[in-house]
Amino acid sequence: MPGARQPAGMHRPPSPPYQEPPALEDQDLLLAAAYVSDAQYNRNVPFETSPQAIRLYCFYNHWTMRAATYFFICVDLALAFFEEPAWLPLPFLATSIAEVLCLTVFFGRLVHFAKVTPQMVFWKDTKNICLMVTIVLTLIDLIIYGSLEAVNIRAVRWSRALRPVFLINFPESRQIRRAFRSIRNTLPDILYVFLLFIFSVLIFSLIALKLFGNRGLKTVEGSPYFTNILDITFELYVLVTTANSPDVMMPAYEFSWWYSLFFITYIIINTYIFMSVFLAVVYNNYRKHLKNEIRTLAYLKRHKMLEAFNILKVKVGTEFMVTEAQWRRLVKLVAPDISSSHLELLLRISDEGQKGHVDKTNFLRLADLLNIQVVTVNIRRHPLEAWMPQVYQSSASLLVQKMVRHRTFVWVYDVIILVNAVFIALDEKNPFISYAEWLFLFLYVIEILLKLYTYEPRAYFGRKQFWNWFDTLIIIAALVATVANTTIRSARKYSSQQILDIVLILRILRLLRVIISIQRFRVIVITLINIGPTMLTFGGLVLVVYYVFAIIGMEVFQGRVHFDPSSASPDALACGNPALKDSAFAQGRYCRNNFNDLASSLVLLVELTVVNQWHIIANGFALVTHQAAKLYFIVFHVVVVILIVNIFIAFILEAFFVAYSLEKSEVETAIEKKIQELGVGVQEEEMQDRSLVDNVEAKDSGFHGDEGDNKRKALKGLYFRIASKKYRTVDALLQQMFESEIAPEDESPSLEEILNVSPSSRHPRNPSFGNSV
Amino acid sequence: MPGARQPAGMHRPPSPPYQEPPALEDQDLLLAAAYVSDAQYNRNVPFETSPQAIRLYCFYNHWTMRAATYFFICVDLALAFFEEPAWLPLPFLATSIAEVLCLTVFFGRLVHFAKVTPQMVFWKDTKNICLMVTIVLTLIDLIIYGSLEAVNIRAVRWSRALRPVFLINFPESRQIRRAFRSIRNTLPDILYVFLLFIFSVLIFSLIALKLFGNRGLKTVEGSPYFTNILDITFELYVLVTTANSPDVMMPAYEFSWWYSLFFITYIIINTYIFMSVFLAVVYNNYRKHLKNEIRTLAYLKRHKMLEAFNILKVKVGTEFMVTEAQWRRLVKLVAPDISSSHLELLLRISDEGQKGHVDKTNFLRLADLLNIQVVTVNIRRHPLEAWMPQVYQSSASLLVQKMVRHRTFVWVYDVIILVNAVFIALDEKNPFISYAEWLFLFLYVIEILLKLYTYEPRAYFGRKQFWNWFDTLIIIAALVATVANTTIRSARKYSSQQILDIVLILRILRLLRVIISIQRFRVIVITLINIGPTMLTFGGLVLVVYYVFAIIGMEVFQGRVHFDPSSASPDALACGNPALKDSAFAQGRYCRNNFNDLASSLVLLVELTVVNQWHIIANGFALVTHQAAKLYFIVFHVVVVILIVNIFIAFILEAFFVAYSLEKSEVETAIEKKIQELGVGVQEEEMQDRSLVDNVEAKDSGFHGDEGDNKRKALKGLYFRIASKKYRTVDALLQQMFESEIAPEDESPSLEEILNVSPSSRHPRNPSFGNSV
Repeated sequence: MPGARQPAGMHRPPSPPYQEPPALEDQDLLLAAAYVSDAQYNRNVPFETSPQAIRLYCFYNHWTMRAATYFFICVDLALAFFEEPAWLPLPFLATSIAEVLCLTVFFGRLVHFAKVTPQMVFWKDTKNICLMVTIVLTLIDLIIYGSLEAVNIRAVRWSRALRPVFLINFPESRQIRRAFRSIRNTLPDILYVFLLFIFSVLIFSLIALKLFGNRGLKTVEGSPYFTNILDITFELYVLVTTANSPDVMMPAYEFSWWYSLFFITYIIINTYIFMSVFLAVVYNNYRKHLKNEIRTLAYLKRHKMLEAFNILKVKVGTEFMVTEAQWRRLVKLVAPDISSSHLELLLRISDEGQKGHVDKTNFLRLADLLNIQVVTVNIRRHPLEAWMPQVYQSSASLLVQKMVRHRTFVWVYDVIILVNAVFIALDEKNPFISYAEWLFLFLYVIEILLKLYTYEPRAYFGRKQFWNWFDTLIIIAALVATVANTTIRSARKYSSQQILDIVLILRILRLLRVIISIQRFRVIVITLINIGPTMLTFGGLVLVVYYVFAIIGMEVFQGRVHFDPSSASPDALACGNPALKDSAFAQGRYCRNNFNDLASSLVLLVELTVVNQWHIIANGFALVTHQAAKLYFIVFHVVVVILIVNIFIAFILEAFFVAYSLEKSEVETAIEKKIQELGVGVQEEEMQDRSLVDNVEAKDSGFHGDEGDNKRKALKGLYFRIASKKYRTVDALLQQMFESEIAPEDESPSLEEILNVSPSSRHPRNPSFGNSV
Repeated sequence: MPGARQPAGMHRPPSPPYQEPPALEDQDLLLAAAYVSDAQYNRNVPFETSPQAIRLYCFYNHWTMRAATYFFICVDLALAFFEEPAWLPLPFLATSIAEVLCLTVFFGRLVHFAKVTPQMVFWKDTKNICLMVTIVLTLIDLIIYGSLEAVNIRAVRWSRALRPVFLINFPESRQIRRAFRSIRNTLPDILYVFLLFIFSVLIFSLIALKLFGNRGLKTVEGSPYFTNILDITFELYVLVTTANSPDVMMPAYEFSWWYSLFFITYIIINTYIFMSVFLAVVYNNYRKHLKNEIRTLAYLKRHKMLEAFNILKVKVGTEFMVTEAQWRRLVKLVAPDISSSHLELLLRISDEGQKGHVDKTNFLRLADLLNIQVVTVNIRRHPLEAWMPQVYQSSASLLVQKMVRHRTFVWVYDVIILVNAVFIALDEKNPFISYAEWLFLFLYVIEILLKLYTYEPRAYFGRKQFWNWFDTLIIIAALVATVANTTIRSARKYSSQQILDIVLILRILRLLRVIISIQRFRVIVITLINIGPTMLTFGGLVLVVYYVFAIIGMEVFQGRVHFDPSSASPDALACGNPALKDSAFAQGRYCRNNFNDLASSLVLLVELTVVNQWHIIANGFALVTHQAAKLYFIVFHVVVVILIVNIFIAFILEAFFVAYSLEKSEVETAIEKKIQELGVGVQEEEMQDRSLVDNVEAKDSGFHGDEGDNKRKALKGLYFRIASKKYRTVDALLQQMFESEIAPEDESPSLEEILNVSPSSRHPRNPSFGNSV
């Protein structure tokens, strides 16, 4: 029942100043917490505001529910591995039962969502309709296929191509949907450039036909050169992707030098200029739409925080405020796992003057504050120091500790790792080198022991100390594997070799540590890590497209090409298909590139994305089926290479530019300032290089001087560090850019205006936001 | 003598208001004209201000002098076609005399420049030093080579690689130098990413060696797979360029599906992510430096215009102005070819209130005003109308004219051209089709005659009517060629076929007209044409790099690979070199790809730029010389593909974004407004589609109504149209962006500050600009 219940804060008479406000009902607080949580995670699902619906909504958003949904989506997608043509064939009954189970879960999730969201909104959302239609279609397909199977008629399981719909259309996959929207928005502009490009290819094909058709030239394979307009167009389209350069030019070029100019002109116009224009158009659209969407998100977030504020506000003096008690209860509800010291820190930042109230401006920042990961560092003494202080504090021991903390120690081990890499590259059968391996292992063990002696072990193996964990695990694994290998060297088996391989690779990956220790490299790597999460979005996008193409490819091309390394028959040389005899496909030993199971199909599609030699693969599959099969490969090229790869490049460009142009967010700066003010900050470098305990002593004494402040004492012994700097995404950066543009008093455009910008969340009469202004 | 002569305007006592100012000396006007001209063409050469030096400077800037310089640069560069290894060998004496002649001309040009510019500036400019050193080195090389030649010792003509210095370092090649500076500025940032990238390739190589080295796998050619770390590194570097994908993966992939993950990971990290990061870094730097340089240019232009204003200004009332008479003399000096009506138009824009003076703000715009191409359209009646008005104005004739002017007429002919294209694609030996050719020719002739009947012939063949000229010439050529072909069909000769080919190609190019007639396509094409001029800059840049690589390649690889299509010996199959027997190079029939003359070398370098199969070419040349020869190809890839192609893409992206974001310049708008105010404007569409004369009549009558204004009458019968819209470059657009940011009163940062930004024109005590503020 949309709009049935008004948020409580709206209609309460303003409380008299400085009088304890009446306790809010629990459900009001719950509603506010739901708004703040939505703002924190950028969720934009309108929900009913009845107490029961809010509880259902919280349950809907619980991480276990979301994890379960994703798990079943994965299961559903992975079914293709086990269905004919299969990598590991399972009977149809097994896979169909698994699929029905997945569908039930999806349906359950959808029903849950329908209970949470207002009916009208639910039925107007194409996402939900889409999901329901897909579930029904899949069931129908299953029934048809099953009954045909029962009477031994081979049918096509076409509904499998619809499976990615589940990945896209659940509200959690906002990022993937946005990437798809990006593509859809780009389509009209791309279309005209594409038509122009096709036109240009056709004109050049005509010219090529007239120039070379009657010359009687032969290709390297001895077939006539450029005599059929369709073949020419395909060859020239391939030339745009550069996959057949310079081969396609050679016969004409051998005939006359001047003909090379035709191909050079073609490449300049179609490969360099048109492909750059595609990138420019895609990039321009991506940037435009991204900014629109991010702006919408920023405004929606502001709206939700205003909702929450309106529920909780009480009048203090002339202004509305949220009391400290309410604020604490709210934060505890939104982030149940928050440590009390962290909560205290946030309160200090929000309630600058410690007046017992949080004003509107500071309240609106709450979602951002919660999003910033603050690591609480518990400084402890080294256990050895506690157990035997004389020995640990002796001058020899202190010298060792000073040595280990010195920069040179890191450098020495960087050099050792590099030398080790050279040894790895050398022949390992040489006995001297295998002895050297033992030496290196010994040195690494020494390193770890020294570090554990110097640094506090629990700090050394802290949650964020990825490299320490990495180092230690690799060394232990290498130690175990090398010992195992030496003992069973007489009866060396394949499996032992594989474990050794993996350990060796991991040992080589230690080289990465060398890079991280150089400042200039670290900057680049950190930028790359920052954009990592959003790159995973692209992984999802690519997976969806690959999956659809793989299913279609398997239905069309399965079993046409065989790979059988054991057979020595002449048929095996032609990939088990006489049509491929003497083709470039068979000569290039491409038989392994087939559509005979999902795993092979996916690898093949990656090869097509890389583009090179795609025409040979396309020709091969055209030979075993029909020339029209080339269309499948051309469509794949247009969709994946021209659209998706360009969006990927656009995204990386934008990410780099945003990362270059923005330094630190206002909120982060505020937190850092407060941490510094309170003297409870700790630099990451200090964690690694310097004796934290020394610093702590110094700071502690300073703290004790400030006797009057009780609350400050509560923070004593705890040290904070902002961890989110490394984990900022482009989204977050852009959102930050727009938020700094919105003034805190600015009520922002009306909700209708905002929502008109973003086509995805168009819910004209949104009950949960409708009363906000 | 720097600073010897102060600009006259600075020290003249201010004239009393409204009194005729004393006539300026001619040399003052000449100096002002030189400043304005420099501002107009963005020249930033400091010059002496003595009357003689100014005249020399004007002569230096005269287009004939510049054209002569470029001509001799072309001759010098083209000499490589005629020197061993030559396309058309000439004796050493002939080429050396030509080269000495070129060097003399370059030296003369340099001496001329030294006379014009202050001594101190001249000797501090690295460009000039560079030129002199190159001239001396070339002479030394010529003498050494000549004397060794005389005693029959083969020497290396190494100075030939220096020839592009002349193309870069003459002050006219500002654009190419800027592109080079762009690259130089990008280098430090690129370097770190490149090192990281190389590091990543090495780590993967190590892993590959460990994973595949001991498996006993074989490549398609039967050689051992991934056993040598150097080979692996090369193969994996090639994989980054995707040139050997998926071949390099196949042996491992056939062995186990899991190994494909290694290659996929490698490609994602190194090809997709690193290559995008290269583009991002190059683009970011390009944008940053481009904006700096353009801003410097904008400020320098402002300075020069201020100089000119200070020379010519007289005090009128409380403000300094330039009198109309002086202004006219100045413009006539700067643009001697300007038509009096155009001059009048500019004066109207500059002297808004017609007070007989041009104020400072308007004077500063003069350079921009002169840069905007205004086409004067002389409206005339159709000659047929003048000769036989009854017939031409008869209802049948008017109907024909209306028909021709109608949009459908264009569409009908677009369809006819498309149908013709289909016929061209069909077999021309079919007699029906050759008859159809006659029909199409007839239709085209009819079209042109009808258009000539409808539109005024001199307007139809106007200076800017490219497509009309193009159409007519092609039809006449096709008519002549087809007639000639038919008459000599019995004795068909090769030459006749070639002419026919060219005409056919041109006929196919008529299809372009169809594109231009569709609005959405026109926008894209116009943007592409806009960025055309700057793309030519890249042509220059690429030419320089290609030339240097081609000369080096010819010296290293000449004669190693032979292409001889006539010989049928087995040696010819191995490109005349036994080392190539059974290599992929010979099997791919790549013998034509060699360094045996400049033309072949350039084509080969284009093939390397396109990247595909570059490893086969590199391997081929490594086989006939030494494995180290691969370094030449790797360096070429890094320089051309990673740096230059990325800058090219960055440039196209930026050009598109600027073109999207900017609509019309302030100055253009001012001119257009004035043209519209005076009622003398004409839309381009009107020129084509509508009866201009009708409009003219209507406007004329309006004009006559305004009897009082004499000057307005002077413009009667003349119509203007801004032509520059189509010819705007990115430079101009960006400059415009910055200029709109500089307020007219703003004296801008001091000259020293400006020049510190731009390393190219750093002349600390610039005599011609020193007195400006």
